[in-house]
Amino acid sequence: MDYALFFTYLAACVAPAMTGAMFPPGAWYQALRKPSWTPPNWAFPVAWTTLYLLMSAAAARASGFAGAELGLALWSVQIAFNTLWTPVFFGLRWMKVALAVLGALWLAVAATMIAFFRVDGWAGAMFLPYLVWVTVAFALNLSVLRLNPEADASRAGAGSGTGAAG
Amino acid sequence: MDYALFFTYLAACVAPAMTGAMFPPGAWYQALRKPSWTPPNWAFPVAWTTLYLLMSAAAARASGFAGAELGLALWSVQIAFNTLWTPVFFGLRWMKVALAVLGALWLAVAATMIAFFRVDGWAGAMFLPYLVWVTVAFALNLSVLRLNPEADASRAGAGSGTGAAG
Repeated sequence: MDYALFFTYLAACVAPAMTGAMFPPGAWYQALRKPSWTPPNWAFPVAWTTLYLLMSAAAARASGFAGAELGLALWSVQIAFNTLWTPVFFGLRWMKVALAVLGALWLAVAATMIAFFRVDGWAGAMFLPYLVWVTVAFALNLSVLRLNPEADASRAGAGSGTGAAG
Repeated sequence: MDYALFFTYLAACVAPAMTGAMFPPGAWYQALRKPSWTPPNWAFPVAWTTLYLLMSAAAARASGFAGAELGLALWSVQIAFNTLWTPVFFGLRWMKVALAVLGALWLAVAATMIAFFRVDGWAGAMFLPYLVWVTVAFALNLSVLRLNPEADASRAGAGSGTGAAG
């Protein structure tokens, strides 16, 4: 594996990692009703740190194989939508829009994994935990939205669309 | 140029483009003191649409050349930090932190341009307008911060760090 590529891809992960620190869950999220299978708070930074390392290693590894171009382009799509989710959910509290962003992220992660599998088994396999985690995140976003419809700032009449959440 | 790659890279640009719609400047930004050379409001979506097309074409073109791996990895860094800036500036109104994000974005764009120039002149040249625009954006963010220090929600005593801007 090319370490310059690994650390460059890891630098891209700094952007979504920063959203976690800048738009923290806080009291608003803690007060929401959550499903019984919600992972404990400590699991999120642990999972994301692991996933950032795995997805960067996967991209660095795939880069060494011919025909990896599409997978690397899809990698860009997933990191951009990954960066977008946190400000939409925890910043704007637009839970329905955030769910759509997670759906787009899920598709991008699945497509990247398939494209990587076609050039290298290890690169594809390193994306599997990421797809599992985004599936859990999607189910959690959906469940929290259903359990707390009044907390979705993107619903009709919520006075949304002003940019910064009130 | 490979059109599947072009549209995949363009799909990554949808994430930062959405931040512009989700975190609009609004009354807060309009009321800020701005330098005389501030581009008119209509110039921003026009410039960004042009730049998204150019940066996607540059990545699709570079993908066809041997040795483009580092440039493509750097492309991922720039799209992630591009997605991060708008929520930080217009969402949190952390003008100083947003300036640091723009600094990181400038470095990523410059590095991508240099890496692309090393494999293909056209791919590198297509990044030049982007670097110019991010330079203008950095100067504008810095100038607006200096002209409106009281509007920076990340300054000491501003009661920041709560996630959603008040």
